[in-house]
Amino acid sequence: MWLQKQINLSPKPRGFHLIDDEIISSIPEIADIKVGLLHILIKHTSASLTLNENADPTVRNDFESHFDHFVPEGAPYYQHTYEGSDDMPAHIKSTIIGSNHTLPITHGQLNLGTWQGIYLCEHRNNGGSRQLVLTIQGE
Amino acid sequence: MWLQKQINLSPKPRGFHLIDDEIISSIPEIADIKVGLLHILIKHTSASLTLNENADPTVRNDFESHFDHFVPEGAPYYQHTYEGSDDMPAHIKSTIIGSNHTLPITHGQLNLGTWQGIYLCEHRNNGGSRQLVLTIQGE
Amino acid sequence: MWLQKQINLSPKPRGFHLIDDEIISSIPEIADIKVGLLHILIKHTSASLTLNENADPTVRNDFESHFDHFVPEGAPYYQHTYEGSDDMPAHIKSTIIGSNHTLPITHGQLNLGTWQGIYLCEHRNNGGSRQLVLTIQGE
Repeated sequence: MWLQKQINLSPKPRGFHLIDDEIISSIPEIADIKVGLLHILIKHTSASLTLNENADPTVRNDFESHFDHFVPEGAPYYQHTYEGSDDMPAHIKSTIIGSNHTLPITHGQLNLGTWQGIYLCEHRNNGGSRQLVLTIQGE
Repeated sequence: MWLQKQINLSPKPRGFHLIDDEIISSIPEIADIKVGLLHILIKHTSASLTLNENADPTVRNDFESHFDHFVPEGAPYYQHTYEGSDDMPAHIKSTIIGSNHTLPITHGQLNLGTWQGIYLCEHRNNGGSRQLVLTIQGE
Repeated sequence: MWLQKQINLSPKPRGFHLIDDEIISSIPEIADIKVGLLHILIKHTSASLTLNENADPTVRNDFESHFDHFVPEGAPYYQHTYEGSDDMPAHIKSTIIGSNHTLPITHGQLNLGTWQGIYLCEHRNNGGSRQLVLTIQGE
Protein backbone atom coordinates (compact mmCIF):
# COMPACT_ATOMS: atom_id res chain seq x y z
CA MET A 1 0.00 0.00 0.00
CA TRP A 2 1.23 3.45 -1.00
CA LEU A 3 -0.26 6.81 -0.09
CA GLN A 4 1.11 10.28 -0.73
CA LYS A 5 -0.22 13.70 0.10
CA GLN A 6 0.98 17.27 0.47
CA ILE A 7 -0.04 19.34 3.47
CA ASN A 8 0.47 22.96 4.41
CA LEU A 9 1.37 23.69 8.02
CA SER A 10 -0.07 26.72 9.74
CA PRO A 11 2.42 29.64 9.68
CA LYS A 12 4.66 29.74 12.73
CA PRO A 13 7.04 32.28 14.26
CA ARG A 14 10.78 31.73 14.15
CA GLY A 15 11.64 28.92 16.54
CA PHE A 16 11.02 25.24 17.22
CA HIS A 17 7.44 23.92 17.25
CA LEU A 18 5.76 20.58 17.88
CA ILE A 19 3.73 19.48 14.85
CA ASP A 20 2.70 15.91 15.72
CA ASP A 21 -0.97 16.87 15.78
CA GLU A 22 -0.90 18.57 12.39
CA ILE A 23 0.78 15.56 10.82
CA ILE A 24 -1.18 12.77 12.48
CA SER A 25 -4.56 14.39 11.87
CA SER A 26 -3.78 14.56 8.16
CA ILE A 27 -3.05 10.85 7.77
CA PRO A 28 -5.89 8.86 9.37
CA GLU A 29 -5.11 6.13 6.82
CA ILE A 30 -2.20 4.82 8.92
CA ALA A 31 -4.73 3.22 11.28
CA ASP A 32 -4.95 0.35 8.77
CA ILE A 33 -1.21 -0.28 8.54
CA LYS A 34 0.26 -3.07 10.64
CA VAL A 35 3.89 -2.47 9.66
CA GLY A 36 5.07 0.47 7.60
CA LEU A 37 6.95 3.72 7.26
CA LEU A 38 6.02 7.40 7.05
CA HIS A 39 8.40 9.58 5.07
CA ILE A 40 8.28 13.35 5.49
CA LEU A 41 9.98 15.96 3.31
CA ILE A 42 9.82 19.68 3.96
CA LYS A 43 9.93 21.42 0.56
CA HIS A 44 11.97 24.41 1.75
CA THR A 45 15.60 25.33 2.35
CA SER A 46 15.14 27.72 5.27
CA ALA A 47 13.10 25.53 7.63
CA SER A 48 13.72 21.98 8.77
CA LEU A 49 12.40 18.98 10.67
CA THR A 50 13.69 16.98 13.61
CA LEU A 51 12.59 14.65 16.40
CA ASN A 52 13.19 15.82 19.94
CA GLU A 53 11.78 16.25 23.44
CA ASN A 54 8.02 16.77 23.42
CA ALA A 55 7.44 17.85 27.02
CA ASP A 56 9.20 20.90 28.46
CA PRO A 57 8.88 24.00 26.20
CA THR A 58 12.20 25.40 27.49
CA VAL A 59 13.94 22.67 25.50
CA ARG A 60 12.61 24.26 22.33
CA ASN A 61 13.69 27.72 23.50
CA ASP A 62 17.18 26.39 24.12
CA PHE A 63 17.31 24.95 20.61
CA GLU A 64 16.61 28.40 19.19
CA SER A 65 19.26 30.00 21.43
CA HIS A 66 21.86 27.39 20.59
CA PHE A 67 21.44 27.48 16.83
CA ASP A 68 21.35 31.29 16.81
CA HIS A 69 24.66 31.24 18.67
CA PHE A 70 26.46 28.67 16.53
CA VAL A 71 24.97 29.70 13.18
CA PRO A 72 25.10 33.45 13.70
CA GLU A 73 23.49 36.20 11.67
CA GLY A 74 25.95 38.61 10.11
CA ALA A 75 28.97 36.30 10.08
CA PRO A 76 31.78 38.16 8.29
CA TYR A 77 32.25 35.35 5.79
CA TYR A 78 28.70 35.41 4.37
CA GLN A 79 28.48 36.46 0.72
CA HIS A 80 24.78 35.63 0.32
CA THR A 81 23.28 38.58 2.24
CA TYR A 82 20.71 40.20 -0.07
CA GLU A 83 17.75 38.18 1.21
CA GLY A 84 18.07 39.45 4.79
CA SER A 85 20.30 38.65 7.74
CA ASP A 86 18.13 35.67 8.72
CA ASP A 87 18.38 34.00 5.31
CA MET A 88 21.86 32.46 5.06
CA PRO A 89 21.78 31.18 8.67
CA ALA A 90 18.40 29.61 7.83
CA HIS A 91 19.93 27.67 4.95
CA ILE A 92 22.78 26.40 7.12
CA LYS A 93 20.48 25.42 10.01
CA SER A 94 18.27 23.56 7.56
CA THR A 95 21.18 21.42 6.38
CA ILE A 96 22.46 20.76 9.90
CA ILE A 97 19.04 19.71 11.22
CA GLY A 98 17.66 18.01 8.11
CA SER A 99 14.78 18.19 5.69
CA ASN A 100 13.68 14.57 5.37
CA HIS A 101 12.89 11.94 7.96
CA THR A 102 11.40 8.46 8.00
CA LEU A 103 9.37 7.17 10.95
CA PRO A 104 8.15 3.64 11.66
CA ILE A 105 4.46 2.74 11.76
CA THR A 106 3.42 -0.14 14.03
CA HIS A 107 -0.12 -1.43 14.57
CA GLY A 108 -1.72 1.66 13.07
CA GLN A 109 0.32 4.31 14.86
CA LEU A 110 3.61 6.14 14.58
CA ASN A 111 6.11 4.22 16.69
CA LEU A 112 8.17 6.93 18.37
CA GLY A 113 9.75 7.05 21.80
CA THR A 114 7.66 8.28 24.72
CA TRP A 115 9.46 11.62 24.74
CA GLN A 116 9.86 12.07 20.99
CA GLY A 117 7.87 14.66 19.12
CA ILE A 118 8.17 16.01 15.59
CA TYR A 119 9.48 19.58 15.40
CA LEU A 120 9.06 22.12 12.66
CA CYS A 121 12.19 24.25 12.93
CA GLU A 122 11.30 27.65 11.48
CA HIS A 123 14.50 29.54 10.76
CA ARG A 124 13.09 32.65 9.03
CA ASN A 125 11.55 35.61 10.81
CA ASN A 126 8.50 35.40 8.55
CA GLY A 127 8.56 31.98 6.95
CA GLY A 128 4.84 31.70 6.30
CA SER A 129 3.12 28.38 5.69
CA ARG A 130 5.48 25.46 5.05
CA GLN A 131 4.65 22.57 2.75
CA LEU A 132 5.33 18.91 3.53
CA VAL A 133 5.16 15.83 1.32
CA LEU A 134 4.01 12.80 3.29
CA THR A 135 4.61 9.37 1.76
CA ILE A 136 3.26 6.30 3.50
CA GLN A 137 3.83 2.69 2.67
CA GLY A 138 3.08 -0.46 4.57
CA GLU A 139 0.99 -3.55 4.83
CA MET B 1 8.34 -8.42 2.35
CA TRP B 2 8.11 -6.40 5.57
CA LEU B 3 9.76 -7.14 8.91
CA GLN B 4 9.89 -5.01 12.03
CA LYS B 5 11.46 -5.57 15.41
CA GLN B 6 12.60 -3.63 18.45
CA ILE B 7 15.97 -4.31 19.99
CA ASN B 8 17.68 -3.04 23.12
CA LEU B 9 21.35 -2.16 22.83
CA SER B 10 23.70 -2.99 25.67
CA PRO B 11 24.27 0.11 27.88
CA LYS B 12 27.26 2.17 26.82
CA PRO B 13 29.29 4.99 28.36
CA ARG B 14 29.06 8.53 27.03
CA GLY B 15 30.75 8.64 23.64
CA PHE B 16 30.61 7.18 20.15
CA HIS B 17 30.37 3.40 19.70
CA LEU B 18 30.28 1.00 16.77
CA ILE B 19 27.09 -1.09 16.84
CA ASP B 20 27.17 -2.91 13.50
CA ASP B 21 27.45 -6.28 15.21
CA GLU B 22 24.52 -5.69 17.55
CA ILE B 23 22.32 -4.65 14.65
CA ILE B 24 23.34 -7.25 12.09
CA SER B 25 23.13 -10.16 14.52
CA SER B 26 19.54 -9.20 15.30
CA ILE B 27 18.32 -9.31 11.69
CA PRO B 28 19.47 -12.59 10.11
CA GLU B 29 16.38 -12.32 7.87
CA ILE B 30 18.14 -9.87 5.53
CA ALA B 31 20.09 -12.79 4.08
CA ASP B 32 17.02 -13.52 1.94
CA ILE B 33 16.65 -9.99 0.54
CA LYS B 34 18.05 -9.29 -2.90
CA VAL B 35 17.21 -5.57 -2.93
CA GLY B 36 15.83 -3.68 0.03
CA LEU B 37 16.20 -1.12 2.77
CA LEU B 38 16.81 -1.19 6.52
CA HIS B 39 15.34 1.69 8.47
CA ILE B 40 16.59 2.40 12.01
CA LEU B 41 15.02 4.73 14.57
CA ILE B 42 16.46 5.37 18.00
CA LYS B 43 13.53 5.99 20.35
CA HIS B 44 15.33 8.59 22.46
CA THR B 45 16.11 12.30 22.41
CA SER B 46 19.48 12.25 24.16
CA ALA B 47 21.31 9.69 22.03
CA SER B 48 21.65 9.46 18.26
CA LEU B 49 22.85 7.42 15.30
CA THR B 50 25.27 8.12 12.48
CA LEU B 51 27.49 6.41 9.92
CA ASN B 52 31.19 7.11 10.13
CA GLU B 53 34.70 5.69 10.10
CA ASN B 54 34.82 2.13 11.45
CA ALA B 55 38.57 1.64 11.83
CA ASP B 56 40.64 3.97 14.03
CA PRO B 57 39.12 4.43 17.52
CA THR B 58 40.66 7.91 17.83
CA VAL B 59 38.11 9.09 15.27
CA ARG B 60 35.37 8.28 17.77
CA ASN B 61 37.27 10.04 20.56
CA ASP B 62 37.55 13.13 18.38
CA PHE B 63 33.81 13.08 17.74
CA GLU B 64 33.20 13.23 21.48
CA SER B 65 35.72 16.07 21.90
CA HIS B 66 34.31 18.07 19.03
CA PHE B 67 30.66 17.83 20.02
CA ASP B 68 31.48 18.59 23.66
CA HIS B 69 33.27 21.72 22.49
CA PHE B 70 30.62 23.01 20.09
CA VAL B 71 27.56 21.93 22.11
CA PRO B 72 28.90 22.85 25.53
CA GLU B 73 27.52 21.99 28.93
CA GLY B 74 26.52 24.99 31.02
CA ALA B 75 25.96 27.42 28.15
CA PRO B 76 24.61 30.66 29.68
CA TYR B 77 21.54 30.59 27.43
CA TYR B 78 20.20 27.21 28.58
CA GLN B 79 16.85 27.39 30.42
CA HIS B 80 16.34 23.61 30.56
CA THR B 81 18.85 22.72 33.28
CA TYR B 82 16.98 20.68 35.89
CA GLU B 83 17.79 17.27 34.37
CA GLY B 84 21.57 17.74 34.75
CA SER B 85 24.25 19.58 32.85
CA ASP B 86 24.58 16.78 30.29
CA ASP B 87 20.87 16.80 29.37
CA MET B 88 20.27 19.85 27.19
CA PRO B 89 23.51 19.34 25.22
CA ALA B 90 22.38 15.74 24.66
CA HIS B 91 19.12 16.93 23.09
CA ILE B 92 20.94 19.33 20.78
CA LYS B 93 23.56 16.76 19.75
CA SER B 94 20.78 14.28 19.01
CA THR B 95 19.15 16.70 16.56
CA ILE B 96 22.43 17.65 14.88
CA ILE B 97 23.50 14.03 14.39
CA GLY B 98 20.11 12.44 13.74
CA SER B 99 17.79 9.79 15.09
CA ASN B 100 16.70 7.92 11.96
CA HIS B 101 18.66 6.46 9.09
CA THR B 102 17.95 4.25 6.12
CA LEU B 103 20.55 1.84 4.71
CA PRO B 104 20.48 -0.15 1.49
CA ILE B 105 20.40 -3.95 1.44
CA THR B 106 21.99 -5.68 -1.54
CA HIS B 107 22.26 -9.45 -2.09
CA GLY B 108 21.49 -10.26 1.52
CA GLN B 109 23.80 -7.76 3.19
CA LEU B 110 23.91 -4.14 4.26
CA ASN B 111 25.53 -2.23 1.41
CA LEU B 112 27.75 0.32 3.16
CA GLY B 113 31.10 1.74 2.17
CA THR B 114 34.23 -0.16 3.20
CA TRP B 115 34.97 2.33 5.95
CA GLN B 116 31.41 2.99 7.09
CA GLY B 117 30.17 1.69 10.41
CA ILE B 118 27.01 2.44 12.38
CA TYR B 119 27.61 4.51 15.52
CA LEU B 120 25.50 4.78 18.61
CA CYS B 121 26.20 8.29 19.88
CA GLU B 122 25.54 8.23 23.62
CA HIS B 123 25.25 11.80 24.85
CA ARG B 124 24.25 11.19 28.48
CA ASN B 125 26.64 10.26 31.26
CA ASN B 126 24.39 7.35 32.24
CA GLY B 127 22.09 6.72 29.32
CA GLY B 128 21.40 3.07 30.03
CA SER B 129 20.10 0.68 27.39
CA ARG B 130 18.82 2.36 24.23
CA GLN B 131 15.96 1.01 22.16
CA LEU B 132 15.91 0.85 18.36
CA VAL B 133 13.07 0.08 15.95
CA LEU B 134 14.34 -1.80 12.90
CA THR B 135 12.09 -1.92 9.84
CA ILE B 136 13.13 -3.98 6.86
CA GLN B 137 11.52 -4.19 3.48
CA GLY B 138 12.69 -5.69 0.26
CA GLU B 139 12.28 -8.43 -2.28
CA MET C 1 8.78 -2.23 -8.03
CA TRP C 2 12.34 -2.15 -6.75
CA LEU C 3 15.42 -0.85 -8.54
CA GLN C 4 18.92 -0.39 -7.22
CA LYS C 5 22.11 0.86 -8.83
CA GLN C 6 25.48 2.27 -7.90
CA ILE C 7 26.81 5.35 -9.64
CA ASN C 8 30.13 7.16 -9.49
CA LEU C 9 30.03 10.94 -9.42
CA SER C 10 32.61 12.91 -11.34
CA PRO C 11 35.43 14.07 -9.01
CA LYS C 12 34.82 17.49 -7.50
CA PRO C 13 36.95 20.01 -5.62
CA ARG C 14 36.42 20.62 -1.91
CA GLY C 15 33.13 22.45 -1.45
CA PHE C 16 29.39 22.15 -2.06
CA HIS C 17 28.13 21.10 -5.50
CA LEU C 18 24.74 20.61 -7.14
CA ILE C 19 24.37 17.02 -8.41
CA ASP C 20 20.71 16.86 -9.44
CA ASP C 21 21.64 16.31 -13.08
CA GLU C 22 24.07 13.48 -12.36
CA ILE C 23 21.48 11.68 -10.25
CA ILE C 24 18.40 12.22 -12.40
CA SER C 25 20.14 11.27 -15.64
CA SER C 26 21.14 7.95 -14.09
CA ILE C 27 17.60 6.90 -13.14
CA PRO C 28 15.33 7.35 -16.17
CA GLU C 29 13.22 4.50 -14.74
CA ILE C 30 11.46 6.85 -12.30
CA ALA C 31 9.38 8.18 -15.21
CA ASP C 32 7.17 5.11 -14.76
CA ILE C 33 6.57 5.59 -11.03
CA LYS C 34 3.37 7.29 -9.92
CA VAL C 35 4.15 7.28 -6.20
CA GLY C 36 7.47 6.24 -4.73
CA LEU C 37 10.71 7.03 -2.95
CA LEU C 38 14.34 7.44 -3.98
CA HIS C 39 16.89 6.56 -1.32
CA ILE C 40 20.48 7.77 -1.69
CA LEU C 41 23.51 6.65 0.32
CA ILE C 42 26.98 8.06 -0.14
CA LYS C 43 29.43 5.24 0.61
CA HIS C 44 32.05 7.46 2.22
CA THR C 45 32.81 9.04 5.59
CA SER C 46 34.49 12.24 4.42
CA ALA C 47 31.82 13.55 2.02
CA SER C 48 28.11 14.00 2.54
CA LEU C 49 24.77 14.84 0.96
CA THR C 50 22.15 17.49 1.68
CA LEU C 51 19.26 19.37 0.12
CA ASN C 52 19.60 23.13 -0.11
CA GLU C 53 19.23 26.24 -2.25
CA ASN C 54 19.77 25.51 -5.94
CA ALA C 55 20.02 29.04 -7.33
CA ASP C 56 22.66 31.48 -6.05
CA PRO C 57 26.17 29.93 -6.02
CA THR C 58 27.23 32.20 -3.13
CA VAL C 59 25.01 30.09 -0.88
CA ARG C 60 27.27 27.13 -1.57
CA ASN C 61 30.38 29.24 -0.93
CA ASP C 62 28.93 30.31 2.42
CA PHE C 63 28.31 26.69 3.35
CA GLU C 64 32.00 25.95 2.83
CA SER C 65 33.02 29.01 4.86
CA HIS C 66 30.67 28.21 7.70
CA PHE C 67 31.61 24.56 8.09
CA ASP C 68 35.32 25.36 7.82
CA HIS C 69 34.84 27.85 10.66
CA PHE C 70 32.82 25.64 12.99
CA VAL C 71 34.56 22.35 12.21
CA PRO C 72 38.11 23.70 12.07
CA GLU C 73 41.24 22.02 10.82
CA GLY C 74 43.95 21.61 13.44
CA ALA C 75 41.68 21.73 16.50
CA PRO C 76 43.88 21.06 19.55
CA TYR C 77 41.68 18.16 20.66
CA TYR C 78 42.08 16.06 17.50
CA GLN C 79 43.94 12.77 18.03
CA HIS C 80 43.25 11.41 14.54
CA THR C 81 45.68 13.54 12.53
CA TYR C 82 47.80 11.14 10.47
CA GLU C 83 45.55 11.26 7.38
CA GLY C 84 46.00 15.01 6.88
CA SER C 85 44.54 18.13 8.44
CA ASP C 86 41.43 17.94 6.25
CA ASP C 87 40.57 14.38 7.30
CA MET C 88 39.10 14.56 10.80
CA PRO C 89 37.05 17.69 10.02
CA ALA C 90 35.72 15.83 6.97
CA HIS C 91 34.48 12.97 9.16
CA ILE C 92 32.73 15.38 11.54
CA LYS C 93 31.14 17.41 8.73
CA SER C 94 29.91 14.18 7.15
CA THR C 95 28.06 13.23 10.34
CA ILE C 96 26.61 16.72 10.88
CA ILE C 97 25.32 16.98 7.30
CA GLY C 98 24.37 13.37 6.69
CA SER C 99 25.11 10.45 4.41
CA ASN C 100 21.65 9.12 3.54
CA HIS C 101 18.51 10.83 2.33
CA THR C 102 15.13 9.77 1.02
CA LEU C 103 13.22 11.83 -1.53
CA PRO C 104 9.63 11.47 -2.73
CA ILE C 105 8.75 10.54 -6.31
CA THR C 106 5.44 11.85 -7.68
CA HIS C 107 4.10 11.31 -11.19
CA GLY C 108 7.45 10.21 -12.57
CA GLN C 109 9.60 12.95 -11.07
CA LEU C 110 11.44 13.80 -7.89
CA ASN C 111 9.07 15.94 -5.83
CA LEU C 112 11.33 18.58 -4.28
CA GLY C 113 10.65 22.21 -3.47
CA THR C 114 11.22 24.79 -6.20
CA TRP C 115 14.45 25.96 -4.58
CA GLN C 116 15.72 22.57 -3.42
CA GLY C 117 18.69 20.94 -5.08
CA ILE C 118 20.79 17.93 -4.09
CA TYR C 119 24.31 18.83 -2.92
CA LEU C 120 27.40 16.70 -2.85
CA CYS C 121 29.40 18.10 0.05
CA GLU C 122 33.04 17.28 -0.66
CA HIS C 123 35.03 17.72 2.54
CA ARG C 124 38.44 16.46 1.41
CA ASN C 125 40.93 18.46 -0.62
CA ASN C 126 41.27 15.59 -3.09
CA GLY C 127 38.28 13.34 -2.54
CA GLY C 128 38.19 11.84 -6.01
CA SER C 129 35.10 10.15 -7.43
CA ARG C 130 32.39 9.42 -4.86
CA GLN C 131 30.10 6.40 -5.05
CA LEU C 132 26.35 6.50 -4.39
CA VAL C 133 23.85 3.67 -3.95
CA LEU C 134 20.46 4.63 -5.36
CA THR C 135 17.46 2.53 -4.30
CA ILE C 136 14.09 3.22 -5.86
CA GLN C 137 10.75 1.76 -4.97
CA GLY C 138 7.26 2.72 -5.97
CA GLU C 139 4.21 1.82 -7.96
